[in-house]
Amino acid sequence: MRIVLNVEYAGESFEGWQTQPHGRTVQDSLENALRCIADTPVPTVCAGRTDTGVHATAQVVHFDAPVERPISAWVRGVNSHLPEAVSVRWAQPVADDFHARFSATARHYRYILFNGPVRPALLHARAGWFHRPLDAQRMAEAATAILGEHDFSAFRAAGCQAHSPVRRMRHARVARSGDFVVFDFCADAFLHHMIRNLVGALVYIGKGAQPVSWMAELLAGRDRTRAAPTFSAAGLYLCGVEYPDQWSLPGQGRIICTPQLALPVSCPEPESRSAD
Amino acid sequence: MRIVLNVEYAGESFEGWQTQPHGRTVQDSLENALRCIADTPVPTVCAGRTDTGVHATAQVVHFDAPVERPISAWVRGVNSHLPEAVSVRWAQPVADDFHARFSATARHYRYILFNGPVRPALLHARAGWFHRPLDAQRMAEAATAILGEHDFSAFRAAGCQAHSPVRRMRHARVARSGDFVVFDFCADAFLHHMIRNLVGALVYIGKGAQPVSWMAELLAGRDRTRAAPTFSAAGLYLCGVEYPDQWSLPGQGRIICTPQLALPVSCPEPESRSAD
Repeated sequence: MRIVLNVEYAGESFEGWQTQPHGRTVQDSLENALRCIADTPVPTVCAGRTDTGVHATAQVVHFDAPVERPISAWVRGVNSHLPEAVSVRWAQPVADDFHARFSATARHYRYILFNGPVRPALLHARAGWFHRPLDAQRMAEAATAILGEHDFSAFRAAGCQAHSPVRRMRHARVARSGDFVVFDFCADAFLHHMIRNLVGALVYIGKGAQPVSWMAELLAGRDRTRAAPTFSAAGLYLCGVEYPDQWSLPGQGRIICTPQLALPVSCPEPESRSAD
Repeated sequence: MRIVLNVEYAGESFEGWQTQPHGRTVQDSLENALRCIADTPVPTVCAGRTDTGVHATAQVVHFDAPVERPISAWVRGVNSHLPEAVSVRWAQPVADDFHARFSATARHYRYILFNGPVRPALLHARAGWFHRPLDAQRMAEAATAILGEHDFSAFRAAGCQAHSPVRRMRHARVARSGDFVVFDFCADAFLHHMIRNLVGALVYIGKGAQPVSWMAELLAGRDRTRAAPTFSAAGLYLCGVEYPDQWSLPGQGRIICTPQLALPVSCPEPESRSAD
């Protein structure tokens, strides 16, 4: 029976998703925990192979259960064998022709950038940092240039193994929230380092080093060497994967980001001190 | 010249504030960085000596600068010698009779509890966790019992070294925000483990194991052994220290929590997919 999992992890604790001989990856941790439940090796496939330091609030993974177990064993049971920095949020049976990677129609990534003069400590591995003031409005405007179907070679890592550099960007939004700038991208799929390269270019525009039109120029030039440096992995979150409704996955056939990125309770002002 | 610092740190990276022979504390890290700038040892005093695993968005620290340095050296210079999990947010000169601990008139602590069936991974060291549903309204009501001046012996750790168990609670608020329950406490000062013990008791009330009136009973009983277990350090943040206006510290004489606990940008729903 094929099972689909929704998995959350803190990326700084792992050397990326994909299994490595040293075993310090999310896939290694997850497959180890699944083996504890199944008593036999359980290979997994994920929707988006995140790099070292990249987080996920809603990675999607499938595997073929080699033994029958109640669905709670694939959540609570697996979680009891996982390190603190990764957990299965839900599991459910799915048809055998579902594929976490190939059935996906879109991926949502969020980049959280702390924009202030002093290095953030509490969010040191959980947010990017840029110390000079950024104009989020300029960046939002520049980001519209990448909407739709384009050859994204200008934002593709040298080692990227994708067959084609063409991707279809469904949204690319930039918004300021206090000292944070939040970038939300949704596309059918992403090239290697594509979001971190997009954020790098947008920051050049946001700090005023390049005009808003630079994004369209870079895109048209298809030349990675002309674009900005790759931005830090620390602020990047895989926060949703979409599938056609036929798979009946939670969230009306699509998976959106968890509230765990959002702690929206504002800190109350201290009450005015009394005169005593 | 006496200097006051505002310091932020991620508590899971340290064995508490106070210096230890092994050197893995926030104070050890900070004094080491200050020594790099001053070329001589620089003892420090903080407002609230946080335990292992407890975070701070706005710890207040003072020291007597043994050498003259520009104020930026005490911020950017010190930060360049600190580990990633701690940073100085600001520094300013202050009168010699200012004392980070004894001049403080109030401390603000926030406890962030993730309330959901599945263990949080992204916030694993940054939030407490309770898996069964909690009634935040009941907890908020129960928390009003501790307002004002009381003997807090029922919520005091066995090893607490304070001279008196009497503290004056200025506010004690509990509010739900999605899957999170946020507890905000402000008092003149706190006993050892006091907030984690208060949260433990409130959770007993929130899950329905005790009536709302239990908080007042525990307080009146002054008996630690009758109260609930100490809650995890993971969710606890020192997020503000208040001082009389005479010291002219940033924030109109008082220091409130940073926006870094709050990432209020809501995640957009994915756009509806087109028919193609």
